[in-house]
Amino acid sequence: MKTLTVELAERSYPIYIGQELLSRSELYNKHIRGKQVLIVTNTTVAPLYLETVEAALTDYTVERVILPDGEEYKTLQTLDLIMTALLEKRLDRSVTLIALGGGVIGDMTGFAAACYQRGVDFIQIPTTLLSQVDSSVGGKTAVNHPLGKNMIGAFYQPRCVIADIDTLNTLDDQQLSAGLAEVIKYGILGNRTFFEWQEAQMKNLIGREPDALSYAIERSCQDKADVVTQDERESGVRALLNLGHTFGHAIESGMGYGQWLHGEAVAVGMVMAMDLSERSGWVTKEDTQRVITLIEQANLPTKAPAELSVERMLDLMSVDKKASQGMIRFVLAKSIGETVMTSNYDKNLLVETLTACRQT
Amino acid sequence: MKTLTVELAERSYPIYIGQELLSRSELYNKHIRGKQVLIVTNTTVAPLYLETVEAALTDYTVERVILPDGEEYKTLQTLDLIMTALLEKRLDRSVTLIALGGGVIGDMTGFAAACYQRGVDFIQIPTTLLSQVDSSVGGKTAVNHPLGKNMIGAFYQPRCVIADIDTLNTLDDQQLSAGLAEVIKYGILGNRTFFEWQEAQMKNLIGREPDALSYAIERSCQDKADVVTQDERESGVRALLNLGHTFGHAIESGMGYGQWLHGEAVAVGMVMAMDLSERSGWVTKEDTQRVITLIEQANLPTKAPAELSVERMLDLMSVDKKASQGMIRFVLAKSIGETVMTSNYDKNLLVETLTACRQT
Repeated sequence: MKTLTVELAERSYPIYIGQELLSRSELYNKHIRGKQVLIVTNTTVAPLYLETVEAALTDYTVERVILPDGEEYKTLQTLDLIMTALLEKRLDRSVTLIALGGGVIGDMTGFAAACYQRGVDFIQIPTTLLSQVDSSVGGKTAVNHPLGKNMIGAFYQPRCVIADIDTLNTLDDQQLSAGLAEVIKYGILGNRTFFEWQEAQMKNLIGREPDALSYAIERSCQDKADVVTQDERESGVRALLNLGHTFGHAIESGMGYGQWLHGEAVAVGMVMAMDLSERSGWVTKEDTQRVITLIEQANLPTKAPAELSVERMLDLMSVDKKASQGMIRFVLAKSIGETVMTSNYDKNLLVETLTACRQT
Repeated sequence: MKTLTVELAERSYPIYIGQELLSRSELYNKHIRGKQVLIVTNTTVAPLYLETVEAALTDYTVERVILPDGEEYKTLQTLDLIMTALLEKRLDRSVTLIALGGGVIGDMTGFAAACYQRGVDFIQIPTTLLSQVDSSVGGKTAVNHPLGKNMIGAFYQPRCVIADIDTLNTLDDQQLSAGLAEVIKYGILGNRTFFEWQEAQMKNLIGREPDALSYAIERSCQDKADVVTQDERESGVRALLNLGHTFGHAIESGMGYGQWLHGEAVAVGMVMAMDLSERSGWVTKEDTQRVITLIEQANLPTKAPAELSVERMLDLMSVDKKASQGMIRFVLAKSIGETVMTSNYDKNLLVETLTACRQT
């Protein structure tokens, strides 16, 4: 087992990465301060791992909420269901929430923990590659609004993250690929060496080779933790983690949440970011092609769906929260491994990018 | 104009107290960082003060949301309306929310500011005595859940509070009295001198004498600010501010939100706290009687409604968030001006108190 620490003064917390972690009681016991636990999970994950987690929590009163599975349920209405469960079961301020599932469960449970009685403890057990490498690190919690993704939320840190690689064995191929999109992101945005390692290892990653997956998760979490430590509330450098996300959110939201996986949308968004950077004369055609090739090897899409017109994409992006004072800001690349947040690009080139990176 | 400061390191903010403040542009301009403002108010307050506030905001793009008036609208559903307005009007992270109204508007707008895009600026303009003396200080924001009051919320500080005493001229007598309940609370919980000043001044307070009101607001805000500075997130001494509130919340929730005013319920709750303290042998019969007399002079109720049985009150209080690990904890008095948070009382005496302090 590897242990990383996200350094955030009194809000610092460990990330445990390894195999057979779900059943290790001592990992939970170290981080639960009260006697009550509420496990929040969904109908897909519950039959696979709920029993194992409950068996490890012998020292506590354990309650559970099993939600429907899918991004389309990441809403204020589902948050209300968690709140109702907390209150009906009479769980008080000393309760610890455990998020058992992917990014949707993690984001929503984290936000529920941030809001319930103005803040209670929570633990993340991410069970998808996407949530292990990304959404479990950094304390961003939220639900979606019909008019925009993650528009209602809080910065709120877990007490610990338990990333058990064995849970990836039950993940389908499409979900695994979606997680790899975020792994690829960490290479492009600030770590060229890691990008090159991925070019060499993509076959092993797709083949679920444990050592390769373990290193990819560790490296991604560490890179993200380093950024979050510098800028917890995203007033500066943390915004770079949104590489591909402004484009990606528009695709997710335009298609209706749950139709495209987050990682798939981000994959296309990264291609768009590279394309716009190339058109702006900042990166070479070769760099863009290397990114496209790696994304294709990860079995991810590289073009936006034909259903979304260029006008619709522009419209959707202008409500994305990365827009500041009316201008759409993007994370663009100077090279593979070096990115900047900017609104200093030619708007005509943006239209060209949206046109070129769209299925016809 | 008086200026108090709530000292909370980088979250410190001023409270301006005085007359004719709503129209003073410079008070707003000092605290608004972007160019966009959303005023959140209700159907009662909008016709009275919205125009004055908008006229002072000439330097900004001003949008507005006018909500229905009443505690029964302090819900996740109404929060969703504010979020929809923010997104439909394309307001971004640089927006400042202005809460123009009483405690319900303040709590809900503050929570909306805490959650929108994970946190934007907000300014409080409390227009009731209750919100001027209490809910505008300390950063507690929340909405209610059908199973409990203020169960969903955040600790989130405003950029400033503008308490314009002139707005109290349009407040009805019942609302004025409800505000006085919290003023009385500050005397009982930690400031015997202030309690005695109120005994001498209650006639002037009920008569809306500006100097008396101004001093009462100032003193209450300062007393609260002193407590909040010591304990922002209520892990210790701040809990004393809940004097009368565990009982009071049960009355509000049991009767259905909006049926009893918060201040009225807290008034009864303070009588119950004194009664239980007296039965426990901690305060004298005379002290309890002085509190009852002052509450009566403020035209406030001193007994719970007959509709709520003792069993129902006990049941309602056990889900209140002041319950810890199953035991109901109360703020009880050692004397007027000295209170403690405790679960160390005889449960039979609690039943006696609930029986004695109930209308028959």
